[in-house]
Amino acid sequence: MATMMKAAVFVEPGRIELREKPVPEVGPLDALLRITTTTICGTDVHILKGEYPVAGGLTVGHEPVGVIERLGAAVSGFREGQRALTGAITPSGHSAACQCGRAAQDGAGTAHGWKAMGGWRLGNTIDGCQAEYVLIPDAMNNLAPVPDGLTDEQVLMCPDIMSTGFSGAERGDVAIGDIVAVFAQGPIGLCATAGAKLSGATTIIAVDGVPERLAMATRMGADHVIDYTRSDPVAEILRLTGGRGVDVAIEALGTSQTFESCLRVLRPGGTLSSLGVYSADLRLPADAFAAGLGDYRIISTLCPGGHERMRRLLSVIESGRVDFGAMVTHRFKLDDIEAAYDLFAHQRDGVLKVAITP
Amino acid sequence: MATMMKAAVFVEPGRIELREKPVPEVGPLDALLRITTTTICGTDVHILKGEYPVAGGLTVGHEPVGVIERLGAAVSGFREGQRALTGAITPSGHSAACQCGRAAQDGAGTAHGWKAMGGWRLGNTIDGCQAEYVLIPDAMNNLAPVPDGLTDEQVLMCPDIMSTGFSGAERGDVAIGDIVAVFAQGPIGLCATAGAKLSGATTIIAVDGVPERLAMATRMGADHVIDYTRSDPVAEILRLTGGRGVDVAIEALGTSQTFESCLRVLRPGGTLSSLGVYSADLRLPADAFAAGLGDYRIISTLCPGGHERMRRLLSVIESGRVDFGAMVTHRFKLDDIEAAYDLFAHQRDGVLKVAITP
Amino acid sequence: MATMMKAAVFVEPGRIELREKPVPEVGPLDALLRITTTTICGTDVHILKGEYPVAGGLTVGHEPVGVIERLGAAVSGFREGQRALTGAITPSGHSAACQCGRAAQDGAGTAHGWKAMGGWRLGNTIDGCQAEYVLIPDAMNNLAPVPDGLTDEQVLMCPDIMSTGFSGAERGDVAIGDIVAVFAQGPIGLCATAGAKLSGATTIIAVDGVPERLAMATRMGADHVIDYTRSDPVAEILRLTGGRGVDVAIEALGTSQTFESCLRVLRPGGTLSSLGVYSADLRLPADAFAAGLGDYRIISTLCPGGHERMRRLLSVIESGRVDFGAMVTHRFKLDDIEAAYDLFAHQRDGVLKVAITP
Amino acid sequence: MATMMKAAVFVEPGRIELREKPVPEVGPLDALLRITTTTICGTDVHILKGEYPVAGGLTVGHEPVGVIERLGAAVSGFREGQRALTGAITPSGHSAACQCGRAAQDGAGTAHGWKAMGGWRLGNTIDGCQAEYVLIPDAMNNLAPVPDGLTDEQVLMCPDIMSTGFSGAERGDVAIGDIVAVFAQGPIGLCATAGAKLSGATTIIAVDGVPERLAMATRMGADHVIDYTRSDPVAEILRLTGGRGVDVAIEALGTSQTFESCLRVLRPGGTLSSLGVYSADLRLPADAFAAGLGDYRIISTLCPGGHERMRRLLSVIESGRVDFGAMVTHRFKLDDIEAAYDLFAHQRDGVLKVAITP
Repeated sequence: MATMMKAAVFVEPGRIELREKPVPEVGPLDALLRITTTTICGTDVHILKGEYPVAGGLTVGHEPVGVIERLGAAVSGFREGQRALTGAITPSGHSAACQCGRAAQDGAGTAHGWKAMGGWRLGNTIDGCQAEYVLIPDAMNNLAPVPDGLTDEQVLMCPDIMSTGFSGAERGDVAIGDIVAVFAQGPIGLCATAGAKLSGATTIIAVDGVPERLAMATRMGADHVIDYTRSDPVAEILRLTGGRGVDVAIEALGTSQTFESCLRVLRPGGTLSSLGVYSADLRLPADAFAAGLGDYRIISTLCPGGHERMRRLLSVIESGRVDFGAMVTHRFKLDDIEAAYDLFAHQRDGVLKVAITP
Repeated sequence: MATMMKAAVFVEPGRIELREKPVPEVGPLDALLRITTTTICGTDVHILKGEYPVAGGLTVGHEPVGVIERLGAAVSGFREGQRALTGAITPSGHSAACQCGRAAQDGAGTAHGWKAMGGWRLGNTIDGCQAEYVLIPDAMNNLAPVPDGLTDEQVLMCPDIMSTGFSGAERGDVAIGDIVAVFAQGPIGLCATAGAKLSGATTIIAVDGVPERLAMATRMGADHVIDYTRSDPVAEILRLTGGRGVDVAIEALGTSQTFESCLRVLRPGGTLSSLGVYSADLRLPADAFAAGLGDYRIISTLCPGGHERMRRLLSVIESGRVDFGAMVTHRFKLDDIEAAYDLFAHQRDGVLKVAITP
Repeated sequence: MATMMKAAVFVEPGRIELREKPVPEVGPLDALLRITTTTICGTDVHILKGEYPVAGGLTVGHEPVGVIERLGAAVSGFREGQRALTGAITPSGHSAACQCGRAAQDGAGTAHGWKAMGGWRLGNTIDGCQAEYVLIPDAMNNLAPVPDGLTDEQVLMCPDIMSTGFSGAERGDVAIGDIVAVFAQGPIGLCATAGAKLSGATTIIAVDGVPERLAMATRMGADHVIDYTRSDPVAEILRLTGGRGVDVAIEALGTSQTFESCLRVLRPGGTLSSLGVYSADLRLPADAFAAGLGDYRIISTLCPGGHERMRRLLSVIESGRVDFGAMVTHRFKLDDIEAAYDLFAHQRDGVLKVAITP
Repeated sequence: MATMMKAAVFVEPGRIELREKPVPEVGPLDALLRITTTTICGTDVHILKGEYPVAGGLTVGHEPVGVIERLGAAVSGFREGQRALTGAITPSGHSAACQCGRAAQDGAGTAHGWKAMGGWRLGNTIDGCQAEYVLIPDAMNNLAPVPDGLTDEQVLMCPDIMSTGFSGAERGDVAIGDIVAVFAQGPIGLCATAGAKLSGATTIIAVDGVPERLAMATRMGADHVIDYTRSDPVAEILRLTGGRGVDVAIEALGTSQTFESCLRVLRPGGTLSSLGVYSADLRLPADAFAAGLGDYRIISTLCPGGHERMRRLLSVIESGRVDFGAMVTHRFKLDDIEAAYDLFAHQRDGVLKVAITP
């Protein structure tokens, strides 16, 4: 095996470059994954722009699909050469947060076991997977075998996009017969739409401003689509529901405006399920929040990880319940990742997700 | 029985006066309750000040304890002469909101069955109970017998204060071993403190600025008290918890500052349980909200009603689990209710709750 | 309007006959529904055989679809001439059970508000709907309008079959990615299969002994079907799941054998969701129950009722999520209901459900 | 440090003997705990009698309190010399069961991640802690520091008795105002009684046949005690509740009779929370189970483990919410453990729990 590899590295705001780096050493609890396919996330674009700070020199990327190249001495239950992926979030498994079912807030190594976003390590606090190889920490908690019959592209949404998007419906407790609105139909919003349908919602209203995304939303299960460039989504949702509002509103963009719109379309006692990454403060207007007396719930969620989560998402793909194949609109070699960033960051050419192959 | 009665009536902002009114007619689903004891709520003070609008001429008050004077033709299961109370919230029982377990948002009479705060009728949309008599709507859903061994004052907190305060712990899912902070120790905050203890919290941190209220908080179960006039409660709570933060923070005041402080003391994945009535917009600062990635939950709750809720709260009193007797600090005749408002609105003389007896 | 009507009446074990009866008087909280379509339930066959005792002279049937003929004086929110149905279970809305979210155990009229199966009144404790007219008690809690675009047959499963079957998945907390087994694919089992799919299960294993029912199970969402006349379902399910077992096993027949098989196919920590009506004692074998140490849950459910439940089920039909049209295999006039019983009780001619029209 | 140690070893049915054994080698994920205090569990008596089979030569015991003697190479977050305990159940942290919140069914090492009772390793599948030293597997998931102010005896109930007993209330979802019955008031039943009180139950009915245990039950929070040798507990509980029955019945003995009695005292829609270890098959009589139509829930639970669980239980002790000091009725040196078994197995001299100190 080579000792050097190519990796997409954050250099400074505005610059992510492909560089040579040593292939990582494998500790006792780690696994080395040879990447066969990965992708770029909206969060990576925030990193590129310097809006989300990471250390200079860090390899970016947190959506790995690949083959197990080497296993740590203490890792059992897997074999080298096996296809595998991991979630974008790779929790330790043993922190207080993990034991409380909130593994994304994994505080392994802290005195009390909690750390905000602590489970997000790949491409954040340790080297990520836009590279030829990536080191997976706490491998026994994170490695998920990929079923033979599925291609890399079919499972490429599992690590982050599906896990995050579906959690919008799951943590919002979407139930059979619910009316659900999903604000924004980028990759995560589309998965939230699909997750709402899988959870039994019978009226799903998808909001976006890009016709291709609204068309894709219909494929994912939306019963109604609203182009916010043509009509006011709050007014339109209230009209569609006869003034009742929705049981669950899912925020999948990350702006204060969509967040507030979610609140305004909720029926009393409804749930705002928030997936967005917010760079600005949010507001709960007293009227929209019914002065605190509306029995509302606001739930924010960071992408759930761990191999069992991945197994469940893989089973969704394998069972044919949902087909996310059409999500991958563009393909690049790792050598061309800078061009991929350029396309993706500017949302050119109807891009939804890009597949990157070393 | 007399045909006229005395009632405390909202006249205009700044004026609640005792007036003569006809004793209400009893419809088929109603019960007429002769009030033996009632009280004044912070919300009534908002009404007095014109901060919460109600119709001129409305009888105020929503915390009735009394004796059943007359039952509607279709009401069974109770007898005239029986002691009873009802919740501040008197839902219909048959709306969609009721059937979904969110009866406080009772939308009986609307097309879709939901109405924000719709369950709050007494002293809001229909005549209330600061009077000699009050008409209880949907009596079979709302009348709760008062056990013989309990005095009016012992049960006077049930209709609103206990029901609201306890719901802060209940809807926050306080569990055995939780660390809980309660911001503000007025009557509702004190009940939230008691509710957190009853739910198994093992570290309860109570915040207020009035020494008597902090002393009462200790009696209700607080393990630590923080006088916010002497130290910064956010810093102090983080210090007390070793930087971890609390599992559940209960807001029991209704200001944007306490709301934000609640958010700032949460551990990742924690729950903000909001009880306050907010007249201003609230803010979720991006940092305190972990940019949406902290798995936080924000739950707002309006006082739960219905006779089963009341029965459970009465059983808390009857079992001796909590003693709220000391909450009633002052007593007035209904004839002197204007003086009672004056004392209570200005929080003079260490007042917590006043008992009003016709 | 006529004063007499035809009704299918339980006479004695083995005899249900069509008789003349007075059209019911409408009390203040009632509604009189003119039946346009109804059906026969497996429970009605138990009544016919005398296995489930009801009073002689009682009109049987609990699955009404019709038109509102007359409304009680205290009923608002509906109009005469409107199409409507109700659940098989018609709870009062105001009992303790209703307020606790267990309306099927409605104890209205009891001292404490709970009564086992108390919500089931139609065709059990009061006259049912295999008749030209039926009186709906507590109409405001129970009447659900039928959307214009749906035929009677399309909605005929809502009152009982769908509500019961779906509750198998719902009360079993079926989640995205679950492996679910459904024992028996009669009408309720088929709806349980459909409900599991609607709830996100990705591997659904349906068990029955009738090829037509297994074929229908596949249409309803089963990924695997097992004919128990050809292979042992317990062994086969363990084989299909690689020895793991299922997350949720739904019992939809009502025998001790299927109940025990459900327990034997559960993974540790799994849930047995029981829908069957059992005439014999059940057994929890110490080995299958892991000596009490397996973290198993056993949940039994009686068909949920109330208009909000019906609205949600109607929305499932209206949205096209599931099509139960093929469930109605035979049609009879009310005049021929005795022949319909004969066919249905003996499960002749591949019958699933019959439609009865006055 | 010595290389040999004393350990209580299962030899054959009827014989547990103190023997010399090598002090265990410490693997990379392990910790070696020097036992300062341990105890004997009812389950150990089953092992002694051969009713629960373990390998000959196995060291028994699963309730360790001690001092960290040595840490595995990959273990961080603890220091040698630190006081610590672990749960009786020592899950891996990384199996599917752990990630699903059912760590007691830990299936680490299996293909699918589930194994009935798999989290119970100490004194079951690996050497236990009735010895001078015990090896703790997956130490980072299991070691819980003991607060300085607490004695060994004060925390001795945490590993199993409290964790199991409290889970009876927790998994039964005991809520404020609940009526709860606890069948049997041995150590686990007493903790279930305490757990029900901590969870807000306002009427707790404790059943046993030993006056000292009933007296202790009152200290732990029981409002009523029933001596089953003097009256029929089912009839008495129904009488006490006015025919209503209880919200939650906790089985804490492990016999088919108490299990069935639990079912018979439930209100419709109630929960049977089962803690017992059953050596015989259980029965759900059709009448007591309301023919499957009573909306009952039966939940079985194995002692929850993991350091966060232990931390929470320790906080219950530390906060003074409950005092289990009186549970330790007898004290023995490890050298005399055979005498301790003799006393405990025969429940002589009012024994509740024994403290064993090396």
